[in-house]
Amino acid sequence: MTGNLIALDWGTSSLRVALLRADGTVVEEHGGSQGILAVAPGGFPAVFAQAIERWRPAPGQLCLASGMVGSRQGWREAPYCPCPAGFDDLARHLAWVPDAPGGVRLGIVPGLSSTRGGVPDVMRGEEIQVMGALALLDRRDGVFVLPGTHSKWVRVAAGRIVDFATFMTGEVYALLRKHSILARTLPPEDGPLDDEAFLRGAAHARASGSLLQAAFSARTLALFDALPPAAQPSYLSGLLVGEELRAQQLPAGAPVVLIGAEALTTRYALALQALGVPSHRLGAEATWRGLGALARTLPPPP
Amino acid sequence: MTGNLIALDWGTSSLRVALLRADGTVVEEHGGSQGILAVAPGGFPAVFAQAIERWRPAPGQLCLASGMVGSRQGWREAPYCPCPAGFDDLARHLAWVPDAPGGVRLGIVPGLSSTRGGVPDVMRGEEIQVMGALALLDRRDGVFVLPGTHSKWVRVAAGRIVDFATFMTGEVYALLRKHSILARTLPPEDGPLDDEAFLRGAAHARASGSLLQAAFSARTLALFDALPPAAQPSYLSGLLVGEELRAQQLPAGAPVVLIGAEALTTRYALALQALGVPSHRLGAEATWRGLGALARTLPPPP
Repeated sequence: MTGNLIALDWGTSSLRVALLRADGTVVEEHGGSQGILAVAPGGFPAVFAQAIERWRPAPGQLCLASGMVGSRQGWREAPYCPCPAGFDDLARHLAWVPDAPGGVRLGIVPGLSSTRGGVPDVMRGEEIQVMGALALLDRRDGVFVLPGTHSKWVRVAAGRIVDFATFMTGEVYALLRKHSILARTLPPEDGPLDDEAFLRGAAHARASGSLLQAAFSARTLALFDALPPAAQPSYLSGLLVGEELRAQQLPAGAPVVLIGAEALTTRYALALQALGVPSHRLGAEATWRGLGALARTLPPPP
Repeated sequence: MTGNLIALDWGTSSLRVALLRADGTVVEEHGGSQGILAVAPGGFPAVFAQAIERWRPAPGQLCLASGMVGSRQGWREAPYCPCPAGFDDLARHLAWVPDAPGGVRLGIVPGLSSTRGGVPDVMRGEEIQVMGALALLDRRDGVFVLPGTHSKWVRVAAGRIVDFATFMTGEVYALLRKHSILARTLPPEDGPLDDEAFLRGAAHARASGSLLQAAFSARTLALFDALPPAAQPSYLSGLLVGEELRAQQLPAGAPVVLIGAEALTTRYALALQALGVPSHRLGAEATWRGLGALARTLPPPP
């Protein structure tokens, strides 16, 4: 094996595995649909062994995994680490898996928790992406956005995650898209993004006081033939992203960092640009760089 | 027949019919599930004839119907009447059904439209409830709220509906309740309202910037065992109602008028009371009083 670290991004619906060099760059990467929901009870060691066997790891080989694999429904619970938190906190709260297959050293990255007004918030997997983004961009401060089913807005200061907030943006989009009255006039497939309709939706959501009100405009614009059916999914997507942006105090200065699938980060970049806010986009490399950087902070095995 | 007007409240999923005295009070009332979605194509005359036959109406008998029966999917479209609108506008825009069964005079009340920032809004059925509330309470001004699948906030000045806004509150509650990640920890049935959990949810939604964020608290509070499962439906309901209230400029002075099913208006009254805003609750009588008052403004038949 020519790598330094075996890194696993093990989420709810997918498992991606990479062999990394000492600097966190990727030697080889593969992935599949064996997310934690697809693993039978007691099946984690076998799925893990199969995922890494191509690299014939020696006993003691360091492996680090992030994501829902550390949740109560995962392999081994890595309890949430409270904010503010940096690399050192993540390293100290790694959940080591005893008796990992082949005698490797497998550590699971803890999720983070934060509290606002007595209400807790949690994330798991995004913390390592943010840490990777800090390393990739050589930054120690800023606002980091991880769009998705449950979007995360993460505030970093002096290299530590200070706090964050979750928005159920992707999930509410899917609910409105598929199960609400709006579904009646929407075409069956989303089609390519219509930038104009997307930005129109984003602007309406920001001008409106609440998504509960703004969302009904997708219905009435269709009713009055003021929005072609093909443009409606983009408009609805704009409503959701615009609502998420409406609720933020957007920073002046350094670009907002968007981390995630390109199809999503492109939309957020577009909506931010319309507000005059610059952004920087990152993809999967953030996870690998984060796990690689975390590995370098660990002491050698005893 | 001993009444003056046959009134029909004909919505999407139900049909209610009443025989009214000249002053708008009810002689007799009945109803069922024959909403417009349950009427086969071409079936409106027969359903209507059966609904009113018990009163053996003479030819020329005045009948007034409000609700979705006047929509494009209903019996006969009564095009939206633009705001501001009062009794006189509704009367002038009645859609008279030609050749109604038994030679009765059947008029369908138009819905209302309003426009805000270039985006249209519509309602159908609620306009007559608001008009009825004005008659019942002897008011000519105020804020009227009609909670439901699509809640309406209606502003009245000098006896006319000036404008209104729709909130998809009930529908989004049902989507989150049944189809979102929150459903995983919620009990199968809602159970009786837990006032404390409801008000806690309402307060959190008002303090939060967006329902997209506030809704996730139902997940995290459950995750941290900080909200018992039995209280979660009430908490979620509070989040939705609180979000709707957050987006309002609540009036000082005269009570907000809540019109609708008691189970809903009670919740809104509770959330408003927590904000120091008095409210007055009305039920089905608003529709009958509105149709009765509308009938009195009509000229005698030619």
